[in-house]
Amino acid sequence: MTIKTNPGNFFEDFRMGQELIHATPRTVTAGDVALYTGLFGVRFAINSSAEFARGMGLPEAPLDDFLAFHFVFGKTVPDISLNAVANLGYAQGRFGVPIYPGDTVSTTSTVIGLRQNKDGKSGVVYVRSIGVNQTGAMVLDYCRWVMVRKQNEAAAAPEPVTPTLPGVVAAGDLQVPDTLHVAGYNTALAGSPYLWDDYVVGEKIDHVDAMTIEEAEHMIATRLYQNTAKVHFDAMMQKASRFGRRLIYGGHIISLARSLSFNGLANAFKVVAINGGRHVSPTFAGHTIYAWSEVLGKMEIPGRSDVGALRLRTVATKDKACADFPFKDAEGNYDPSVALDFDYTVLMPRR
Amino acid sequence: MTIKTNPGNFFEDFRMGQELIHATPRTVTAGDVALYTGLFGVRFAINSSAEFARGMGLPEAPLDDFLAFHFVFGKTVPDISLNAVANLGYAQGRFGVPIYPGDTVSTTSTVIGLRQNKDGKSGVVYVRSIGVNQTGAMVLDYCRWVMVRKQNEAAAAPEPVTPTLPGVVAAGDLQVPDTLHVAGYNTALAGSPYLWDDYVVGEKIDHVDAMTIEEAEHMIATRLYQNTAKVHFDAMMQKASRFGRRLIYGGHIISLARSLSFNGLANAFKVVAINGGRHVSPTFAGHTIYAWSEVLGKMEIPGRSDVGALRLRTVATKDKACADFPFKDAEGNYDPSVALDFDYTVLMPRR
Amino acid sequence: MTIKTNPGNFFEDFRMGQELIHATPRTVTAGDVALYTGLFGVRFAINSSAEFARGMGLPEAPLDDFLAFHFVFGKTVPDISLNAVANLGYAQGRFGVPIYPGDTVSTTSTVIGLRQNKDGKSGVVYVRSIGVNQTGAMVLDYCRWVMVRKQNEAAAAPEPVTPTLPGVVAAGDLQVPDTLHVAGYNTALAGSPYLWDDYVVGEKIDHVDAMTIEEAEHMIATRLYQNTAKVHFDAMMQKASRFGRRLIYGGHIISLARSLSFNGLANAFKVVAINGGRHVSPTFAGHTIYAWSEVLGKMEIPGRSDVGALRLRTVATKDKACADFPFKDAEGNYDPSVALDFDYTVLMPRR
Repeated sequence: MTIKTNPGNFFEDFRMGQELIHATPRTVTAGDVALYTGLFGVRFAINSSAEFARGMGLPEAPLDDFLAFHFVFGKTVPDISLNAVANLGYAQGRFGVPIYPGDTVSTTSTVIGLRQNKDGKSGVVYVRSIGVNQTGAMVLDYCRWVMVRKQNEAAAAPEPVTPTLPGVVAAGDLQVPDTLHVAGYNTALAGSPYLWDDYVVGEKIDHVDAMTIEEAEHMIATRLYQNTAKVHFDAMMQKASRFGRRLIYGGHIISLARSLSFNGLANAFKVVAINGGRHVSPTFAGHTIYAWSEVLGKMEIPGRSDVGALRLRTVATKDKACADFPFKDAEGNYDPSVALDFDYTVLMPRR
Repeated sequence: MTIKTNPGNFFEDFRMGQELIHATPRTVTAGDVALYTGLFGVRFAINSSAEFARGMGLPEAPLDDFLAFHFVFGKTVPDISLNAVANLGYAQGRFGVPIYPGDTVSTTSTVIGLRQNKDGKSGVVYVRSIGVNQTGAMVLDYCRWVMVRKQNEAAAAPEPVTPTLPGVVAAGDLQVPDTLHVAGYNTALAGSPYLWDDYVVGEKIDHVDAMTIEEAEHMIATRLYQNTAKVHFDAMMQKASRFGRRLIYGGHIISLARSLSFNGLANAFKVVAINGGRHVSPTFAGHTIYAWSEVLGKMEIPGRSDVGALRLRTVATKDKACADFPFKDAEGNYDPSVALDFDYTVLMPRR
Repeated sequence: MTIKTNPGNFFEDFRMGQELIHATPRTVTAGDVALYTGLFGVRFAINSSAEFARGMGLPEAPLDDFLAFHFVFGKTVPDISLNAVANLGYAQGRFGVPIYPGDTVSTTSTVIGLRQNKDGKSGVVYVRSIGVNQTGAMVLDYCRWVMVRKQNEAAAAPEPVTPTLPGVVAAGDLQVPDTLHVAGYNTALAGSPYLWDDYVVGEKIDHVDAMTIEEAEHMIATRLYQNTAKVHFDAMMQKASRFGRRLIYGGHIISLARSLSFNGLANAFKVVAINGGRHVSPTFAGHTIYAWSEVLGKMEIPGRSDVGALRLRTVATKDKACADFPFKDAEGNYDPSVALDFDYTVLMPRR
């Protein structure tokens, strides 16, 4: 008789080059899209209207890119981060083919780096995770690194390997859906007259709106992605933690920030890359999330004169409006209100 | 570099006859229907069962009429009522073709009245909003008026125009779907033996059931409709308001009242008109909503002997059961428990 | 003028052999599935992935069996248990054809037993309820008994009839979908290497994970099933009850327990029978639900060498981890933490 429950992997269980096939492929549906809309209030026209999407050359409305991200990410939790202490960073995230209702997403990961911490109690695991649809086409390919506990502190430390991960996804690596065009793009229906040409590097945008998070909301969202990390769901266990309560899945703040960013970036119709990102501080139910963005770069897309890319930093704060763009102090320390510092690339129509 | 966020229109920004194309068309899906069922517990058979709807001559189960209303209404918020002080009234609401999953709804509005308040700080804006599906067929055509703040109090007052809005939609203006029939209407499956013939003008019905509202529920619902009014979502901002907390979207109470009205009006299978309505007092999470209805009128539908119309007043109360039909006192002041006083018209099969 | 609201049936309203056609057939959709996933975080691959389900010979991903149960059960509430004091037990529950999105479920019940309590104030009603899809094929056939109040205590007691209900559904009565096979069953994607052969009678499994319940969650779930029992929704009425607050629908705990059981029983891909079950103690929002299971029996399925059945007891507890399998004390009294003691049968692939 063997123990049938999955205890998750501990730091000493990972090997360089190890491949992990994650459980529970997920067919995504219009139901997931409705729930995502209800939880985050997203309004980007391409995801909201099948008619609008067809007007852009797509067969129907694709899923919000971060909803795709959460499905791909969620699969990895039971194998990668069940025993994680912290989710440290993201890099080289590239979105591939759009996901449509009816598609089935599954994820595999490869260990690309391992570095035990000096105290011998934990270590950093770097993985590259690839989500594919039912035809095997890449949906999302990204790297993340997490700090994972050791179960057996006496286990030998692995040879340390820290992968080289560029801080930005190159313009040539950004994938624009083949059939996509913006010939008949309607800015009135999309909700803003401002296109790629109107944004300036260094420009900061206060997204003005805000949303307060309830326990039911972040748990429903996180379960929808089949993310099983106990810290989000088990209030009793969390009473004994240093936070004393349930911790909100970091991706919840990414989605809120993206939704809030509509007000100022309504024509940023597609996320094509995650360059980096940091969950600066934890969030809990009751927090009100605000957001602001800075245009970090403008990139032309090779071979396309109709759409351009904007590299953005979107910062989400807790219980603090963003009119003065809270970020870091002179010493480089984040303002205590900052929950998320996220660096990503979006597409926008050009004039 | 221009300000990219939408501040919403202020009273002085509106012009008589102005047409507004509202952003973000919305494809509605079975996911929206499920969420609406989960949030309100609606049980009208025509909306719940594709088989039942087909038995009535429809291609499949249409969306609940108030879900259609919320989608049409939600589009108008960023342009009409982002700076509203109060949502004052509705009139001449006519439902057109049913919406089915897969349809895409979009909304335009026309300013049909303007009247600055005496204090010069705000004014009343009257709009007629029309929601259409992807073929351009009218889904809902209604008028509402809201009190909107001025940003620049020095702005000149417009010529005052108050539109003439009849207090009831005439029977000849009620739209019954072309193919609809009630030949095989099954009252056992519909949940009540009482048909149009059984109701009497002046009859009052206590709907008996009740539902307590949670913050997560009204926010999920309101985001589902892509209604962006901050008062519903930003608990931190609302702390400084006269209410001290998030205000529930008035339409949430309309949907709760309609759902509760099933117990007593189960065969009122379709809402065809909104004659008027008043959000009498604000509602907050924690309130328990009860409802009662009065039959205000019975109308024959021109050209149809199989279905008749009932004009109803449905009153929703907060934290007070409706066995004694709380409404107004001798001076005409509403009972403090009343949240909603709603005047609308429904269809019911005739014997 | 008649009272139009449904007061529900009281004990004296039931007759032996009485047949009840329950209202509001329900077309189930991908939206219901998404909401169920969001509320319970279920991960069984056959229900999560259309590709996985097709690999098992099914046309697409069937609904979770307990979601089917809730739809069938929900229909019965307005007629059977609106005036119930307690939901006493289940027996002889057999699942028939799987439900797929687009199917319409309706339910009828037959009274199979009646026994007035000695105090003359209430009695036990035994019903057999059968849910069918739109073709009339049986989806779920089960018995339950509830204690129902009398309205008129002077009403004569019926001849007492207690039906004979075997404590377990026989292996020969278990229905395996015709086309189902496990030839290409992928345990890596399903989430566990353990198959039917690996489980031992008497084996206990602590499912480790846990979920805390919010008011919004159990109400959204219960309304989704169109279950109308007031005790779940009306916080104001419940203030005056012996619990002082809303009571969570017992089925909510069944679904949570099933979802938690994935960790240890990931290949239990289908529930085929409910042998018995008891809601041992009430649950409220704020409770954290844990679960453990015991293998009560292993059964071969007549005519099939590829799948076997496991009879399981799954116990759900409140605010108490299950590492030491909380159950009953020496006198046979349940541990105060136990909320649910559920006896059911699942299918699992054999080696």
